[in-house]
Amino acid sequence: MRKTWLLFLALCAACAAPDLSTLPRDERFFASLHHSLRAAFLAEALPTCPAYQGLRELCEQAPLRLAGSPGAERAVEWGRGAFERAGLANVRLEPCTVPRWERGEVEELTVVEPAEHAGERIPILALGGSVPTPAEGLEADVLAVTSFEELQARAAEAAGRIVLFARPMDRAQLDPFEAYGGAVSQRSNGAVEAAQAGGVAALVRSMTLAQDDEPHTGALRYQEGVPPVPAAAVSTNGAERIGAWLSAGKRVRLRLALACRTLADVPSANVVGEIPGRERPGEVVLLGAHLDAWDVGQGAHDDGAGCAHLVGAARMLVRHFRQADIQPRRTIRFVLFMNEENGLRGALAYRDAHLAELPQHVLAIESDRGGFMPLGWAADATGASLTALRQLLGGPETTRGGGADISVLAEHGVPLVGLYPNPQRYFDFHHSRKDVPAAVDARELEHGSAWLAALAYLAAMQEDPLPRSEPRPRRR
Amino acid sequence: MRKTWLLFLALCAACAAPDLSTLPRDERFFASLHHSLRAAFLAEALPTCPAYQGLRELCEQAPLRLAGSPGAERAVEWGRGAFERAGLANVRLEPCTVPRWERGEVEELTVVEPAEHAGERIPILALGGSVPTPAEGLEADVLAVTSFEELQARAAEAAGRIVLFARPMDRAQLDPFEAYGGAVSQRSNGAVEAAQAGGVAALVRSMTLAQDDEPHTGALRYQEGVPPVPAAAVSTNGAERIGAWLSAGKRVRLRLALACRTLADVPSANVVGEIPGRERPGEVVLLGAHLDAWDVGQGAHDDGAGCAHLVGAARMLVRHFRQADIQPRRTIRFVLFMNEENGLRGALAYRDAHLAELPQHVLAIESDRGGFMPLGWAADATGASLTALRQLLGGPETTRGGGADISVLAEHGVPLVGLYPNPQRYFDFHHSRKDVPAAVDARELEHGSAWLAALAYLAAMQEDPLPRSEPRPRRR
Repeated sequence: MRKTWLLFLALCAACAAPDLSTLPRDERFFASLHHSLRAAFLAEALPTCPAYQGLRELCEQAPLRLAGSPGAERAVEWGRGAFERAGLANVRLEPCTVPRWERGEVEELTVVEPAEHAGERIPILALGGSVPTPAEGLEADVLAVTSFEELQARAAEAAGRIVLFARPMDRAQLDPFEAYGGAVSQRSNGAVEAAQAGGVAALVRSMTLAQDDEPHTGALRYQEGVPPVPAAAVSTNGAERIGAWLSAGKRVRLRLALACRTLADVPSANVVGEIPGRERPGEVVLLGAHLDAWDVGQGAHDDGAGCAHLVGAARMLVRHFRQADIQPRRTIRFVLFMNEENGLRGALAYRDAHLAELPQHVLAIESDRGGFMPLGWAADATGASLTALRQLLGGPETTRGGGADISVLAEHGVPLVGLYPNPQRYFDFHHSRKDVPAAVDARELEHGSAWLAALAYLAAMQEDPLPRSEPRPRRR
Repeated sequence: MRKTWLLFLALCAACAAPDLSTLPRDERFFASLHHSLRAAFLAEALPTCPAYQGLRELCEQAPLRLAGSPGAERAVEWGRGAFERAGLANVRLEPCTVPRWERGEVEELTVVEPAEHAGERIPILALGGSVPTPAEGLEADVLAVTSFEELQARAAEAAGRIVLFARPMDRAQLDPFEAYGGAVSQRSNGAVEAAQAGGVAALVRSMTLAQDDEPHTGALRYQEGVPPVPAAAVSTNGAERIGAWLSAGKRVRLRLALACRTLADVPSANVVGEIPGRERPGEVVLLGAHLDAWDVGQGAHDDGAGCAHLVGAARMLVRHFRQADIQPRRTIRFVLFMNEENGLRGALAYRDAHLAELPQHVLAIESDRGGFMPLGWAADATGASLTALRQLLGGPETTRGGGADISVLAEHGVPLVGLYPNPQRYFDFHHSRKDVPAAVDARELEHGSAWLAALAYLAAMQEDPLPRSEPRPRRR
């Protein structure tokens, strides 16, 4: 049987399993503390699920809340009220300036050829930040590619065409975030790559594992010196139809019409509230999520869930400290960031406004991976800081980034953690019309609040602060 | 700050957190093995999700498959075919005799008083095994109680009445299975308790945390010497309406009509298949789930998911052993049990038919808690067996029972394990019309198969068998 065990160990090596033996023993002590704290918080919260009530309020009052929109301003007001009702102190708006992009009224992709499908519509959503097409639309043949390398190799065919980036998210990945990471550059950079190859527009297969007619939007980037071309996400079914026509040797010609536009930047705000520390009020444990959401659906998982998690955690912690008649050792600061989706301007404004305090930010925690049942954490720190952080987390942990908003603190040596809910269904909803409160389970959402509250409690209460991390580049 | 930490430790004690420090160090080694095995299995399975395909086949071919019904026989045929297509050896049917209960065509609860609601219907489902009412129905005033103790104290009021058992599942419980365990005796024993107090029928608030109009059925027990009275589950909304009328001091009078019936026992079967062991073929690692389901919905989570888990795990393991050109050290036996829901006759027949082999059943594993994302395991063993089992499981584990079917092996000293998926939404679907394949996520289901396959692999391959447990009473 030796052969089997060798095969077995080779398998382990190949799969790069986390080396669990390096975790300190005390992780188990903290695991037990987390369990107990969560249980205590949840016993109070589960009967009424206040976090889910918060999510519904936000999505009713500001279903569409892309930064710079009237909905985003209503979301800011919701956040301020929710923090005040949760009993936080020092509730305030901290200003930032945000871009303003509007989808406009026209958003159409129409088949010209194959002739037998002429006039049929394929569901799309303009990518956030896209330039419009001419008012009469833009008609061109389609070149489909599955990588930037393929596009470069076929650049001669790309001139004057609409380039479809058709690589699916890889279903074989255990974690859909890995699959997303392996495909999303098509959305972020497809417009630039298409233009550099001489293309006139970019279409991108939607970033989802669902096979349906629902397109999923998201941000694109343009690049200085490369002409901006219009870009839109196509539903997965739409991308497969186009691919099937091309595979069958048919000419595919489409007309794209987008009326989106970028307006002047406008003022907006992050919403901040605190549970002030007593012994070391200058040391900050930051809990973050983002208020803005794409302008389709209601941003329930992305990131209404994170906002609701914070409001729920605030209620749990405020109540706990009041009942025990104590204050935390350190300050716990709650921040609802503006403009995560298309600029990160809120996060950058927070960093700039609090620059002098950052050396005393002992931990930043973000919830921006949806409202499903928590499975663990994503930790981002280095050296002794990472070792101590793993111990404090007391449970399953990946080495992904903590979250986009708090990522701007990495360069300042702040240890970062992201809540890691069950990711299997997240991209079914992400950035689409399907992302509504009915897609979030009230009890699972409440568990997320309890996970965040317990971690913030431990980080704010333990004797010594977490060791600083080395400064390091941002990652989401 | 000492005060806070004391409060803290008191909190831990109060919440009875698992004492993680007692787990052996080697748990981490096994955690790493589980992780690697699952990753290898899933990389093959996730692109096509064969377990979910199996679930859909089962639910299409045999949506209604209560033991003794024609649907149950179609489910047996599906199981045999699915095991054969998965590449198992020695696929066979093992006979058992099962009860046959039919819901019948009439199932009505009609308001007589309050007069302003006369004629309105309240949604119900007869409990499995219930006797019928007279053909013209049964009309009586209602007494609502929240416990058997309250019923006994108010026995004078119960005579001639319909007794409504109205205690909700406790939302404050972190784990809905705890909440279920705290309420389900009303369904199991309510008819007997009602009859003993002189009542003429029993109504039970549905066992669910959902607040809606969907009743959830399940089995009841009658007791020798106590007259059997008809019993039905009322939707949670229905139970609350009746409760509100009574609280307002109104007389509540209802007419119950049930046409259900119990027929003579009929022959049926468990479906069995194997991956034969090479070195120790007589030692058995058993993987079980149950084929039968209630006669509403399609039994997708309960327990179509478990059947699909087994078929998926069988494919993963058969493929793995073929590719490696080896056989497992021990035999891995897959069993789809019949009649878990209302008799456990399949499990008992298995036990009786394999009595001589039971001392060599090294581990029995069941999946009967739905198709959601696995969070851990439920372990049921004693002493050194439990210690070794925890090590082998390599991860989060509760001390609940392994599952109803394998529970009959507890008296024979077999260590038992149940897969423990995320339980938060399970009772939204359980035993109701809502339990359909659309409520199960394909990727989450596949993760469950991989968890089972990895555990069966480790138990079948490790050098020494798990130590025997002490014989102990059954628990689910």
